[in-house]
Amino acid sequence: MRTLIDGLHDHIDKEVTVAGYIDVRRDHGKLIFLDVRDRSGIVQAVVLPNQKDALEVAQTLRSEFVVEVTAKVNKRPEKMVNEKQPNGDIELEILSITVLAEAAELPFEKEAEVNLDTALDNRPFVLRKAQNRAIFKVQHEIVQAYRTFLSGESFVEFEAPKIVGGDAEGGSGVFRLEYLKDKWAYLATSPQLYKQIMVGVFERVFSVGNVFRAEMHSTSRHLNEYTSLDVEFGFIKDHEDIMELEERFMRYLYVHLQETCSDAFALLEAELPSLPEKAFPKMKLREALALIAKETGEDCEDEPDLAPEHERWLSTYAKEKFGSDYIFITHYPVSKRPFYTYEDENDKGYTKSFDLLFRGVEITTGGQRVHDYKELTERMNAKGLEPENFSFYLQAFKYGMPPHGGWGMGLERITQKMLNLDNVKEATLFPREINRIDVQLSE
Amino acid sequence: MRTLIDGLHDHIDKEVTVAGYIDVRRDHGKLIFLDVRDRSGIVQAVVLPNQKDALEVAQTLRSEFVVEVTAKVNKRPEKMVNEKQPNGDIELEILSITVLAEAAELPFEKEAEVNLDTALDNRPFVLRKAQNRAIFKVQHEIVQAYRTFLSGESFVEFEAPKIVGGDAEGGSGVFRLEYLKDKWAYLATSPQLYKQIMVGVFERVFSVGNVFRAEMHSTSRHLNEYTSLDVEFGFIKDHEDIMELEERFMRYLYVHLQETCSDAFALLEAELPSLPEKAFPKMKLREALALIAKETGEDCEDEPDLAPEHERWLSTYAKEKFGSDYIFITHYPVSKRPFYTYEDENDKGYTKSFDLLFRGVEITTGGQRVHDYKELTERMNAKGLEPENFSFYLQAFKYGMPPHGGWGMGLERITQKMLNLDNVKEATLFPREINRIDVQLSE
Repeated sequence: MRTLIDGLHDHIDKEVTVAGYIDVRRDHGKLIFLDVRDRSGIVQAVVLPNQKDALEVAQTLRSEFVVEVTAKVNKRPEKMVNEKQPNGDIELEILSITVLAEAAELPFEKEAEVNLDTALDNRPFVLRKAQNRAIFKVQHEIVQAYRTFLSGESFVEFEAPKIVGGDAEGGSGVFRLEYLKDKWAYLATSPQLYKQIMVGVFERVFSVGNVFRAEMHSTSRHLNEYTSLDVEFGFIKDHEDIMELEERFMRYLYVHLQETCSDAFALLEAELPSLPEKAFPKMKLREALALIAKETGEDCEDEPDLAPEHERWLSTYAKEKFGSDYIFITHYPVSKRPFYTYEDENDKGYTKSFDLLFRGVEITTGGQRVHDYKELTERMNAKGLEPENFSFYLQAFKYGMPPHGGWGMGLERITQKMLNLDNVKEATLFPREINRIDVQLSE
Repeated sequence: MRTLIDGLHDHIDKEVTVAGYIDVRRDHGKLIFLDVRDRSGIVQAVVLPNQKDALEVAQTLRSEFVVEVTAKVNKRPEKMVNEKQPNGDIELEILSITVLAEAAELPFEKEAEVNLDTALDNRPFVLRKAQNRAIFKVQHEIVQAYRTFLSGESFVEFEAPKIVGGDAEGGSGVFRLEYLKDKWAYLATSPQLYKQIMVGVFERVFSVGNVFRAEMHSTSRHLNEYTSLDVEFGFIKDHEDIMELEERFMRYLYVHLQETCSDAFALLEAELPSLPEKAFPKMKLREALALIAKETGEDCEDEPDLAPEHERWLSTYAKEKFGSDYIFITHYPVSKRPFYTYEDENDKGYTKSFDLLFRGVEITTGGQRVHDYKELTERMNAKGLEPENFSFYLQAFKYGMPPHGGWGMGLERITQKMLNLDNVKEATLFPREINRIDVQLSE
């Protein structure tokens, strides 16, 4: 019966079986020390000279060997207690060792700092590093929080299809694939059209899944495949209902991460977001650009969108002025948003849409959508899209659709910014990029 | 402030605002009855002759119009109570109606029985049918149960990549796509290799996500894109540990569905699975075939796999003999299983693998995997695969991998069998098939 390392304190002075990885072996003359790691923690073990069989095995061990050991759990004498070490008050006295799997000589120390390309070349090994396990533990908890929060708000989860027919939303940046019987199909760039259809079914839906962007740039913020956390819901007043829901989620997430991931944040020297006492700050895109122009002297007032440096400037501003790591920017021009974006009847030419900036980068795009069938087809025509190509999607509107809206949020990007990582690829288990699918692609 | 229909009983004799769809309109001379539906339920409303404005609007309403109404919640007089109707003891007396969206004439009655092709052609509309909402509510709860159960067992969820490089597992049935810079990539047929890598990181992992099969057949059991519920975990004794976990999940699922979906099961006239008091029955493939041969006289003892009719026969047998809708079949031949399948050292030529049959169909394939690096490369060679093409995956084994295994389970198929639906497409929101991606593909 295996005992997990985080349960050893219940077995002081008793014999246990522990299974895990050799994290480090240290030879001290006739003693051998082993740090043994399992999914729950790490503990120091010692092989004493009188344990001849175990000693013989211990001498062959290297880092990442997989072992099962039987051992006695000893409390360390007062002066040997190391409070800085996990389980620094106990030690395993090893009685026997069974090797479950050997490990080759490591390419470099597991905890070493290596550059990103080396880290990605050696991903299956490097992911075992404590920092990386912490990153993806946090990512797991972000998704858990997302689901728990939305389920509590009566949202139903669904799986959006990844293979789509026709380059429906248009534009470049779409991967094309060989479908069956010599047909072409495409990879979804978002679950947008399907989640709107699903509003007609369940009113409130969400999905968590990969989306695909055939973009040629390689930056610290972009991926060719990422995980989109989507929401869509009906019977809203306007986009402010959506922003209100998102703000509540972010506050919920804060508490959830505080409760589940404080060790990970400490290890990664990251801090939970600053949340304002009052509502998240928000401003229209034009107000934001005017502010930047006024404060920096930059001639940017007529830009149709925010440049990356403007996102950073606004985040710094929100932090200093409102104590908030989050700021909403609303009312992007109709010309810059997709056909389904709702135009503000009181601010013609601008949409009831928003971005959420978090620590200098946009992590969410959302807004109210057009729900009127006729208006929707007119908006398609205005964007040069053929309504016939959207006949399936349009059924949802033909047969009655409530006012609705939602958002798409990039999981890897929010993980990156939550943990202050330099590159979004550090927050992606197996990043797909222009020159890499796991291994580097040959030229 | 909107009141949900399932909360109307808290507002008897009070005025409320309800928003939803017109399910049905019935004209009774000077009265108009409206069934109003929202995500929480359905209720009858009446427009009395004295409400002139509301009556005028009501006369224009058709099924699937989206409305917001203000109304008084009346308790029905004793003799008007309809116990068979949801909310049959109350009625909304409408004071005003606002149309939020119109609906076109319906292609057919929403609750009509139509053939599968018609249902799929009209999917966004047909999904609103009560039966379909029940199917996908159950599907949502299966996924919820899966996550809750596994999180409780210390499993960490991860998102497996869908774009993979190289046709890694070999064979036909893989979709090919145009990647960047004139490279080819492929769509993952399963998260298998990634979940094994992740065992090296977190010991216990699971994933929920789409997988892709470029298969040309169109049957009641197959899809070209489906949702795979995957599990993989380390430090197992053998495949029986995996079967034990799956059996416990199925028992957990039973309770979860009983608690959350009894209405849906009643509506669909479906029954929860029969579970045996003792462990799920299990037998080796050879024993199963010998039994079928003996009982039916069919000459099938030397088959390397089960035919669909054998799966049905064994399910009937398990139900009659053990009172179980589930039966495990183990020890498929090495030749019929992928390279990573663990060979039973006490039954050479056969693997520590299993299928789980449920109501006549295989819903899970699982087993122990090879964890020794050298053996794994030998097994690749024996199957005609090049270890160099798997160098990324093999890193996980090179640097120490515990004995491990897991399963893949088809979400749509388990939903189908749970609800006794004829075709797996009925349990798929937007099925991808040889002749259809949402709309029928032109010849």
